[in-house]
Amino acid sequence: MLCRKPRSLCSLPPRAQHQYSRWVTVRVGVIGGGQLARMMIPAAVNLGLELDVLAEIEGSSARLAATEVGDYRDAETVLRFAETVDVVTFDHEHVPEQILRQLVAAGHSVQPGPDALRFAQDKLQMRRRLGELGVPMPDWAEVQNEDELAAFIADHGGEAVIKTARGGYDGKGVRLVRDAAEAADWFTALSEDGRGGSLLAEERVDFRRELAQLVARRPSGQTALWPVVETVQRRGVCSEVFAPAPGTSARVAELAASIATLIATELGVTGVLAVELFETSDDRLLVNELAMRPHNSGHWSIDGSVTSQFEQHLRAVLDLPLGDTGVRAPVTVMVNVLGGPATGTLADTYPHVFADQPSAKIHNYGKEPRPGRKIGHVTVTGDDLDTVVFQARAAAALLGADLSDGSGS
Amino acid sequence: MLCRKPRSLCSLPPRAQHQYSRWVTVRVGVIGGGQLARMMIPAAVNLGLELDVLAEIEGSSARLAATEVGDYRDAETVLRFAETVDVVTFDHEHVPEQILRQLVAAGHSVQPGPDALRFAQDKLQMRRRLGELGVPMPDWAEVQNEDELAAFIADHGGEAVIKTARGGYDGKGVRLVRDAAEAADWFTALSEDGRGGSLLAEERVDFRRELAQLVARRPSGQTALWPVVETVQRRGVCSEVFAPAPGTSARVAELAASIATLIATELGVTGVLAVELFETSDDRLLVNELAMRPHNSGHWSIDGSVTSQFEQHLRAVLDLPLGDTGVRAPVTVMVNVLGGPATGTLADTYPHVFADQPSAKIHNYGKEPRPGRKIGHVTVTGDDLDTVVFQARAAAALLGADLSDGSGS
Repeated sequence: MLCRKPRSLCSLPPRAQHQYSRWVTVRVGVIGGGQLARMMIPAAVNLGLELDVLAEIEGSSARLAATEVGDYRDAETVLRFAETVDVVTFDHEHVPEQILRQLVAAGHSVQPGPDALRFAQDKLQMRRRLGELGVPMPDWAEVQNEDELAAFIADHGGEAVIKTARGGYDGKGVRLVRDAAEAADWFTALSEDGRGGSLLAEERVDFRRELAQLVARRPSGQTALWPVVETVQRRGVCSEVFAPAPGTSARVAELAASIATLIATELGVTGVLAVELFETSDDRLLVNELAMRPHNSGHWSIDGSVTSQFEQHLRAVLDLPLGDTGVRAPVTVMVNVLGGPATGTLADTYPHVFADQPSAKIHNYGKEPRPGRKIGHVTVTGDDLDTVVFQARAAAALLGADLSDGSGS
Repeated sequence: MLCRKPRSLCSLPPRAQHQYSRWVTVRVGVIGGGQLARMMIPAAVNLGLELDVLAEIEGSSARLAATEVGDYRDAETVLRFAETVDVVTFDHEHVPEQILRQLVAAGHSVQPGPDALRFAQDKLQMRRRLGELGVPMPDWAEVQNEDELAAFIADHGGEAVIKTARGGYDGKGVRLVRDAAEAADWFTALSEDGRGGSLLAEERVDFRRELAQLVARRPSGQTALWPVVETVQRRGVCSEVFAPAPGTSARVAELAASIATLIATELGVTGVLAVELFETSDDRLLVNELAMRPHNSGHWSIDGSVTSQFEQHLRAVLDLPLGDTGVRAPVTVMVNVLGGPATGTLADTYPHVFADQPSAKIHNYGKEPRPGRKIGHVTVTGDDLDTVVFQARAAAALLGADLSDGSGS
């Protein structure tokens, strides 16, 4: 029998458990035990909320809050977990849609719900829907075979970005191709899959820079936006974030905000929505990707905003009034730590990084180091962009982050 | 047999546990499950440290991190707990000195150690030691009976503040008396105790305001100070804190800093030390009390400083380089929430307080409401003192804090 949380009460008789329930009011359930769930823990502690995590493995990043270990693709596991909490939300977007619909049918609060999440889970559905809304995007097409892809490539200067419709993140399931044959394996996998899927082909945007606009939305409709930020990717993975995006005109900032608000509202997203944007050399904004969860481009907000994306996500999924999204400093820079130090653990570097950069805020995800893996990030706030960038990169380098761009190394 | 942390690994076979130990490097043990231990959890999560708490009760404020429930006055309980962690520190100062000495003798790292803690545990020892160091203090005397107290009262304008040497906090064990007979019960208790104790008598200081100077110190000697803050007490309990203390001259700030640094260094304090000070109407500083743990007067630092007192405490007890103690905003105000709303829970007020004060940072300790009990605090940062004070008090009032001064109510 599943014990009603908090865990430490499970050994008490039922009547004693009840007397504690007077002040244990709200339980937020998170499916997925990665660092996004982990980083919700501090906000939950601050607000006196109970955070319960359904983790995939023992020893997950969010293990402190894990109450269940199980497979999010198993309907019974997820339904049983949902019974233990007051609202279900997510550390990732991979919970199968039909399981989410079962949760909703069973009367659970699922935030964001499946009607919104399908546009984060399926890039083709996302492109179609945003197209209906008139949201600016790269030129794109659904391609079902190599011939259609070849035609798209020919129409777009001899190259295209191709993406699998489902399952991609951190650069996985994305390729830049010049020949349709480079997609052969993906088309083969799709036909063997038997569900008749397609690939998404997009023009390669010659962008000046990449931006991210994060917005939080409550079920009752209130939205709150952080300033638009600039993101730098390396090898398809987020590497650095500058908040606010330096040198951004009011027009671009308002455009990013209105795009994100439109998407959040029209798609019925609740919690945090991250809209990844290309800024072209002629000042246009094009929507690249959506994520319906706290996002790497928002980690800066833990130390750099009055309300972190994690606290905001919890407020939003509970339909509580949203917090102030103002910045705490003129400049905040976040640098990802991928892989970690060559020898030893992240914590082994602390005597060095703490001494070298006393104002750097370290976020260690408690994950096993592996090349290219996101194991932490570091954030610095301050008044001057160059200084803050230097400090953040110095700290990240001492933490073992590989800051090379991958070219020729 | 006690399972080695993390808790979620306890069900795994020993070999599997070992493979996780590669990145679970440091375990900090906290004796005491109150809100001070609770507020260390976010810092531990951020830094990837394991925080294990020996709590007095099930359902304690720090229950999320509690790995043991037991009596801190039982040597075997404390020794067994110490075996599970790499360093032992405290949420309170009541662990008996001889148990601490047993921990040290057994080779455990105890921060702060008993040689320092005795000056937080025994106010008479503290007065004597600070007197040896030439630290400015109110006039004081050890009084063993009503006659000695009467003489002290007569010498000090007909009144005195009397304190029990051990066990007082939040205004408990402190009285303002005009007649030695008002201490009769305390003297009786002391003589019945059989250990021949005394009371501490102090002049009543006509202070302009109360200040608090917090400093952190590592075993290897590095110290770091936050700006001196102003504290407002109501009914002997901290009510409001203004950081930095408004209108403080450089001379007073430097004096407070040097007093705290001297005390921390000479007493060998590690972790956070809070020095509570009286500022007299003629600009003298007098040391009132010491606390060798994170302190109510430092809660503002969670949202208002680059390094919170809780993160700093963890760094310090692990002998890691200390973090930047700069402020994140010109003004930070913290207001305590005592008791809570007349009906319902603290979280029931969230729809109101969040909407009314979106920039207020709520800290809910997850404790059962009880009149006068510290169940949370709220912090606001900003540029203008009057605005920030208003916002913090407004939020606290909506959270059910009783902000009256207790006179005539």
